[in-house]
Amino acid sequence: MAREIAEQPAMFDRILSNGRADIAAVAADVAAAGIRFVVLAARGTSDHAALYAKYLVEIVLGLPAGLASPSTLTAYGARPDLRDVLFVAVSQSGGSPDLVESLTTAGQCGALTLAVTNAPTSDLAAAARLHIDVLAGREEAVAATKSYTAELLSLYLLVDALRGGDGSHARGIVDAAQVLVTDTDQVAAVARRLEGVERLVVTGRGYSYPTAREAALKLMETSYISAQAFSGADLLHGPMAMLQRDSAVIAIAADGIGGTAMRPVLDRLAELETALAIVGSGLADSASQKTALRLPAGLPEELSPLVEIIPLQMLARELAVARGVDPDAPRGLRKVTKTW
Amino acid sequence: MAREIAEQPAMFDRILSNGRADIAAVAADVAAAGIRFVVLAARGTSDHAALYAKYLVEIVLGLPAGLASPSTLTAYGARPDLRDVLFVAVSQSGGSPDLVESLTTAGQCGALTLAVTNAPTSDLAAAARLHIDVLAGREEAVAATKSYTAELLSLYLLVDALRGGDGSHARGIVDAAQVLVTDTDQVAAVARRLEGVERLVVTGRGYSYPTAREAALKLMETSYISAQAFSGADLLHGPMAMLQRDSAVIAIAADGIGGTAMRPVLDRLAELETALAIVGSGLADSASQKTALRLPAGLPEELSPLVEIIPLQMLARELAVARGVDPDAPRGLRKVTKTW
Repeated sequence: MAREIAEQPAMFDRILSNGRADIAAVAADVAAAGIRFVVLAARGTSDHAALYAKYLVEIVLGLPAGLASPSTLTAYGARPDLRDVLFVAVSQSGGSPDLVESLTTAGQCGALTLAVTNAPTSDLAAAARLHIDVLAGREEAVAATKSYTAELLSLYLLVDALRGGDGSHARGIVDAAQVLVTDTDQVAAVARRLEGVERLVVTGRGYSYPTAREAALKLMETSYISAQAFSGADLLHGPMAMLQRDSAVIAIAADGIGGTAMRPVLDRLAELETALAIVGSGLADSASQKTALRLPAGLPEELSPLVEIIPLQMLARELAVARGVDPDAPRGLRKVTKTW
Repeated sequence: MAREIAEQPAMFDRILSNGRADIAAVAADVAAAGIRFVVLAARGTSDHAALYAKYLVEIVLGLPAGLASPSTLTAYGARPDLRDVLFVAVSQSGGSPDLVESLTTAGQCGALTLAVTNAPTSDLAAAARLHIDVLAGREEAVAATKSYTAELLSLYLLVDALRGGDGSHARGIVDAAQVLVTDTDQVAAVARRLEGVERLVVTGRGYSYPTAREAALKLMETSYISAQAFSGADLLHGPMAMLQRDSAVIAIAADGIGGTAMRPVLDRLAELETALAIVGSGLADSASQKTALRLPAGLPEELSPLVEIIPLQMLARELAVARGVDPDAPRGLRKVTKTW
């Protein structure tokens, strides 16, 4: 897991150099199809990449988007009218039978189908009209890290190509990721603060909400902490009551609109006795030094999810080790989860 | 909270008698508009009612549906092309400014807008082209119970009217709910089993997945237990690792396709040392008597969410009382949560 986390800067560089042409070709096919609605299907970590893509599609492309409930097409046998729909299935392994069946059915119902996988020879890639190989390279750790950020970057490049971009705005993520993977001190400091915590809430808004979801899953998978993610807005609608002295909150407040929208949430959290760690840039005040995961400044907000997850992946691994858990052998999990 | 839980059978009866005509009129307007996609927006408990409606729309109506990320229309200023889209905002109070703004913007972007509220004079109802009053009556407890099931029934009746039904299939929920609100013994027995648990996972598939989400929220709000919901499929993709001896799982396995799809999940859970409580009908074997919340048999699966939440609402309240918490005064929550 540590090795694969550290590979991410070089992987970003590789995708930006070698992956863009194929993604631009897929974008041209999508553009030619006259899409009006995007449906994304995924499970686990890839579902968080799909959620990121949903924000991009809605904000950047101005198209309504939804996350599929895969069981409606499989178990319930729904046959919706999917003309003018782009159906995107995101999966590291491309091997989960329910996703293959969902995508195949979506195609039969009139959707243009796209598989985004780290497995170009997978059943899912074969079943789809279009395929994007996310080029993460072989991932061995059960807890997905580099395949997640590779999915994010591939989906970003697809949307960027659809708006006429060439991906050049994304160059900055290589250096930003490099700074983050080498800054082990700040992660160790936050891990020491959170080591004894049994309940963690991770929160963010907008583009950072998928990051909150993925960080919570990573913490659960590796350190077995009971971690939950809420959008900042939903946190105020109920789960706030659950926070208490043995809880901690990790709040993601990257530069931009989502981070600004977190301010009222941070104000409410400050009224509680709950420990608070903040992920963001510009966190210079000394009081927060020991509970801050600082991000490099200056990235466009829409790219922030690609790097802000990195210190959280490192934190999940560090907390697992501190709690005597082997992050490379999580209980009860398999690398490829097949669900029907 | 206890009184409002107990009101649900009579409330169902009232909605079925007095609400159907207005809902049928709204359905006629929706049908006339030639809708191709449905986008649903809500927060907190109402978001789970919206998720139920998403399953209904996809399975019963054969239309793709998605849950809105409200911040894309508000904070991020997205202006998507929403022609042929029905935009449904669901809110007990109709008072959250971000929902009003989202719905207003959706209308400006071409969507037909529908507000589903318990507050016909609310800002949300006023902003929408169409409105459904869910007729729950005044709800005083901070933890929403009857307004949730009123939203479910109203959304069911809307979808049923759109497929040409007259809601008569729903009659059975009145008696089923009456059986459940009076069966306090089974709830007390399960509460005794779960009283010391600090981590609860609630899981279900298909139509029962929104129930799992709502039950987890209710448990968090009232008893402060760290409760998380996962679809049965997603549970296998990671969070399984977090389960341990001090955890418990509540699995919802109502009659039908969703319950059948839970079997492999139940098999995996049986391999663990984690306590397991099952919500379903036909749970007659003596071994499960003390950890079962039995549902009346014979309801169509699509109506099961309207009643299967009731013993879980009762359980949330019972656990709160057992843990010395006042379920009518949750920490840090307000009845109407305004988010921007």
